[in-house]
Amino acid sequence: MSDYILHCFGQSGNAYKVALMLNLCGCDWQPRFVDFFNGETRSPAFRDSCNEMGEVPVLEHGGQRLSQSGAILTLLAERHGRFGGHDAGERYDILRWILFDNHKFTSYFATLRFMVGLKKMGESPVTEFLRGRALAAFDIVEKHLAKRSFMVGETPTIADISMVGYLYYPEDTGIDRSAFSNIDAWTRRIAALPGWAHPYDLMPREPG
Amino acid sequence: MSDYILHCFGQSGNAYKVALMLNLCGCDWQPRFVDFFNGETRSPAFRDSCNEMGEVPVLEHGGQRLSQSGAILTLLAERHGRFGGHDAGERYDILRWILFDNHKFTSYFATLRFMVGLKKMGESPVTEFLRGRALAAFDIVEKHLAKRSFMVGETPTIADISMVGYLYYPEDTGIDRSAFSNIDAWTRRIAALPGWAHPYDLMPREPG
Repeated sequence: MSDYILHCFGQSGNAYKVALMLNLCGCDWQPRFVDFFNGETRSPAFRDSCNEMGEVPVLEHGGQRLSQSGAILTLLAERHGRFGGHDAGERYDILRWILFDNHKFTSYFATLRFMVGLKKMGESPVTEFLRGRALAAFDIVEKHLAKRSFMVGETPTIADISMVGYLYYPEDTGIDRSAFSNIDAWTRRIAALPGWAHPYDLMPREPG
Repeated sequence: MSDYILHCFGQSGNAYKVALMLNLCGCDWQPRFVDFFNGETRSPAFRDSCNEMGEVPVLEHGGQRLSQSGAILTLLAERHGRFGGHDAGERYDILRWILFDNHKFTSYFATLRFMVGLKKMGESPVTEFLRGRALAAFDIVEKHLAKRSFMVGETPTIADISMVGYLYYPEDTGIDRSAFSNIDAWTRRIAALPGWAHPYDLMPREPG
């Protein structure tokens, strides 16, 4: 049995954040498929035994089940001494950007992609609202990356691993990514790290 | 001059999270009004000199300007040795709930309140969407509080201070709060702590 079991499904960028961290740290891990699209995360069994928040990722290790990608990334960075920043100031900034990611950057973009790209629900006032919010967050990150290679400090951190989590997926969101050249260059820098792999190569998309 | 200057406006529950923490810790602090409703947080001056994320709260202390309520709360808990949990397990859980708060609990509820209660934009597919998401997050917290007094451990922590931030405001959201009796009792427990004060008594709502 692997050191780490990641409860996940391939389409979840939040699960990918943890899968990518495990891979970049060279951990011994394996995915366990969660059938989100057939309601598994909403089931009482999942909520009682795996995660009361009804979400993936859940990382199983040494009898513990840990949830929330930002908290899991923080714990893995401490445990493996990788991607956690170099001092207290960097650690503060990492937490600040992970919170921004969860509140705005990933949050609106992921829900927009779910509706438009995965569920093919078409355009609506809700997708228009989400796209506006996502674009405002993209603008902030695009500007932040104008004069730096990574979100915090001179080297990649879990702030990058968190924020980049949804940006390798191919599904349509109606956002013109070519307008964000700094973000684009940054995703390529992360993808060049040893151990990087595409989400659909790390996690199963269906039961199997 | 006070030890801490909090850039804020009374209507911001995210700013209130920090104001409440400062008050509960007995800090020497004062608010500085940010004119959000006239666009100050969207101005280049604010973004360049105060917070590139274009948000309050910003906490000024010792020449530093700190943003993101969840990160500020974490730093204040460490500095003052209050509300930060008792061990590594509690600290992990606190971070987990603060992330859930930023992603889902506060996020949808605060935007719903802004549209319905403050801007009086009326009902729309967007407010319906936000209310559905907020209610799903409320259900998770209501269930979590069924057998416990506070979100993490036996005593109040910054997880409570973060999550409770929007729940004392009087503006309408179209959510029937009487359906959430555990949440209601919990807000009363927090309001009974020495140093608690209502957001509109801690922060100005307008210039002057």
